[in-house]
Amino acid sequence: MSSHHIVRDDQEPALIIANGAACDPELLGQLLEWSPLVIVLDSAIERVIDLGIKVDVLLGDFDRGFDPESYKTAQYPLEIVHAPDQNKTDLEKAFDYLIDRKIPAANVVWATGRRADHTITNLTNIVRYRNLLKIVILDDHSKIFLLPHKFEKWYTAKTPISLIPIGVVNGIFSTNLDYPLENDTLTIGYRTGSSNSVTKDGLVTIMHTDGDLLLMECMD
Amino acid sequence: MSSHHIVRDDQEPALIIANGAACDPELLGQLLEWSPLVIVLDSAIERVIDLGIKVDVLLGDFDRGFDPESYKTAQYPLEIVHAPDQNKTDLEKAFDYLIDRKIPAANVVWATGRRADHTITNLTNIVRYRNLLKIVILDDHSKIFLLPHKFEKWYTAKTPISLIPIGVVNGIFSTNLDYPLENDTLTIGYRTGSSNSVTKDGLVTIMHTDGDLLLMECMD
Repeated sequence: MSSHHIVRDDQEPALIIANGAACDPELLGQLLEWSPLVIVLDSAIERVIDLGIKVDVLLGDFDRGFDPESYKTAQYPLEIVHAPDQNKTDLEKAFDYLIDRKIPAANVVWATGRRADHTITNLTNIVRYRNLLKIVILDDHSKIFLLPHKFEKWYTAKTPISLIPIGVVNGIFSTNLDYPLENDTLTIGYRTGSSNSVTKDGLVTIMHTDGDLLLMECMD
Repeated sequence: MSSHHIVRDDQEPALIIANGAACDPELLGQLLEWSPLVIVLDSAIERVIDLGIKVDVLLGDFDRGFDPESYKTAQYPLEIVHAPDQNKTDLEKAFDYLIDRKIPAANVVWATGRRADHTITNLTNIVRYRNLLKIVILDDHSKIFLLPHKFEKWYTAKTPISLIPIGVVNGIFSTNLDYPLENDTLTIGYRTGSSNSVTKDGLVTIMHTDGDLLLMECMD
């Protein structure tokens, strides 16, 4: 691999395969095609190996009594990152690892489904990585990311758009959504912007003054 | 049915079958056995019928072009509640329906999985029903409910307990948890109490002074 490739690779999002419900192999395949670096969290490696995927980094606290070294030969070269910090989830440790390596972006799969505590923690903890790492969480029904204070993107009409405040979000304005927001406040648990949708083909603008606002593109 | 039965029935939790991922039929069967009233949300009825379950109430906005009346004969007697309010989810409308009927408690299945926007909205919106309806959301890996300001329950050692703040929760104290809380503050997205666990067989106490705190009992 030339140094040209190395530089280019590090600008593409890494792929993190977490330890929740598996996604459709087709979604995984599409993401793998574009990912220069594949990180698998802890015992998810067992399910990933079964899919015949080449992994670059295996990260976890490995406290469930399995031996990460046993994957080194079949997955050579494989970097094993032993991350025992009990105050962070394995997913947060993977984000920290990427930030240390100056990789700017990550796609995350298998972060939802199964345990509800892991799902809600994985979805909501991405807000603390604002300005550190561009994170997108994907599953078979959903694409989730943290909005910058001013967001613009082209969508086709009727695309479902859900705005989920992680805490309280103030000063929200939108254009080209069926339920427009005009200096609105959203509060998790009390007033969210779930199940909005795009009015017509074209740019959607969403602005907010403060707080953490997730955008979820979800389909049945 | 005697009036004695009617009074007693209304004190048992109703069962709401929402429109997310189906749970293990065994969990559903256990809940059905104790539920005097079964409410199904919107087009989930199609999947519920396939399982041979008798439904009491079918509630939804029915905006997907299917005919709720078509189930009336096979499910007789079936109450159909047409709830078109676009500012509430079908699950919230089912909670409102139960409150109107003075039913004090509900178990909810199929409220998680599939779309992430629906999952997070269903999990977090239960906080607004404090003092109105005792709600428990269940799936194959999780049991979720809102904590009163003082909570006590007997657990066996090592039971995983996750405390998820919906917003900011202050003045949290706990006993008999491995990571004790002592006048702590938890904030969604920034500091949660996920993946705690019970220290020894016995009472766990969790208190908080303000805010909305979910307890999640989750298993892999």
